[in-house]
Amino acid sequence: MKFLQFLGFPQFPEFKELRELQESMEIQIAVAKVGKYAASESGDTLEMIERPRGGLSLVLVDGQRSGRGAKAVSNLVARKAISLLAEGVRDGAAARAAHDALFTQHNGKVQATLNIVSIDLTSKTLVLSRNNPNPIFIARKSALTELSETSRPVGLYRHTRPVIAELPLAPETAVVVYTDGLPSAGVRRGKLLDVRAELERLRGGGLESAQTWADRLLAAAVAQDEGRPADDISVLVVAVLRRKAADDRERPLGQSLGDARRMLVRMPL
Amino acid sequence: MKFLQFLGFPQFPEFKELRELQESMEIQIAVAKVGKYAASESGDTLEMIERPRGGLSLVLVDGQRSGRGAKAVSNLVARKAISLLAEGVRDGAAARAAHDALFTQHNGKVQATLNIVSIDLTSKTLVLSRNNPNPIFIARKSALTELSETSRPVGLYRHTRPVIAELPLAPETAVVVYTDGLPSAGVRRGKLLDVRAELERLRGGGLESAQTWADRLLAAAVAQDEGRPADDISVLVVAVLRRKAADDRERPLGQSLGDARRMLVRMPL
Repeated sequence: MKFLQFLGFPQFPEFKELRELQESMEIQIAVAKVGKYAASESGDTLEMIERPRGGLSLVLVDGQRSGRGAKAVSNLVARKAISLLAEGVRDGAAARAAHDALFTQHNGKVQATLNIVSIDLTSKTLVLSRNNPNPIFIARKSALTELSETSRPVGLYRHTRPVIAELPLAPETAVVVYTDGLPSAGVRRGKLLDVRAELERLRGGGLESAQTWADRLLAAAVAQDEGRPADDISVLVVAVLRRKAADDRERPLGQSLGDARRMLVRMPL
Repeated sequence: MKFLQFLGFPQFPEFKELRELQESMEIQIAVAKVGKYAASESGDTLEMIERPRGGLSLVLVDGQRSGRGAKAVSNLVARKAISLLAEGVRDGAAARAAHDALFTQHNGKVQATLNIVSIDLTSKTLVLSRNNPNPIFIARKSALTELSETSRPVGLYRHTRPVIAELPLAPETAVVVYTDGLPSAGVRRGKLLDVRAELERLRGGGLESAQTWADRLLAAAVAQDEGRPADDISVLVVAVLRRKAADDRERPLGQSLGDARRMLVRMPL
């Protein structure tokens, strides 16, 4: 497991300072997801689960091919991972088990990419687990870091294991994870979306909210695909922010309302 | 299973008309959740899971007492229910299994309330499962209906079963589910929150978004508790709406972006 404060976060705040920062932070999670154009079902699955010792885990799976078959594969992998995470199994073991389940069920003939992003409130870290050739981006004010160590999807080879990184929860950090449809947007007309360039643009504008970043990345991809996505596209942004002034505006209604957890889902039929 | 179109929805749209309406709908799910004042952990658990044959299920559990013990109980019940729902088990069976698991583990000595709200895209219905003395409210333009048939929490008696209702997915419908902390808000000063009156007020203002309703209900409860919630409070609103003009404004960015699914979570630390 890599602790990123030692690998590219040289000016990382000291422990005591970090503790104080963490008192006034909020985590924002945003997902934006669209299915392949004219396909009945998305082969991407995103699930979220509460960690029994505090925090949340997000599991994003892209099943091989598209449509109903892909959905069954991504459901199998996601279900295995979240059911173990819900029992308190550590992320790396959950990823291995999800691989083993798919490998056993389909004899190594079907693959899926698997990413797990966990907000672990016990260790006060973000744990990033990757079984995906696509990188994970970490955007901070100082730099845009790419986690791109060689990583295999689950399902194909006997002893596949995830590449795992861990970084402390600290404000002004965004983790960006996505499925293959994002970097391959535009493939039909031979002009792929440059994910890093899009992220540099977003980082230039500041990290206002996780939702803005997820929506803009998806919009850029759909535009690159000329409005008809060539593949399922899912974008997951986990942002650590300082508490917003908006929460204080809500205080008069009830002092503790700034402490409320909120979830909002929109699903067009 | 009760089909509500026969029970209090006399002017319910005809099947063909309903089919056309369903083409241009969106589901909004909003959760607002706050812990008991000065308690380390909330005994309420809310989990969401994708249904393998299309749609989503939401599971809301309130474990007996508060703090760490209650959290372990609500985690156990929620985990059992969602792991079964994820495998395609029907809602009523998942609720019974969650009861059986808690009853077996604690010899009938520990209780929890359990609500399951499912958006079932196969049957195009909302399925409401209740193991909770508190009612579920269904708000439509024509009426505010209360599902308040006698219902027991899970965990205490051998053959506890849920009370289940099913209603067609149709626009301008909101389902409101909550844990005990909402109606008991204000208990310290002997002036309880009138949930029905709050909902009548919201209904009078129209169903703009699920989030507005969830946030306002929580704010009203926290205000009634004078800013220091006497219990964990969770509010879940599932709203069926016509597609928003906002989606059309987004279209120029990419024709299909109005079809995107979105999730947003905010978790203050």
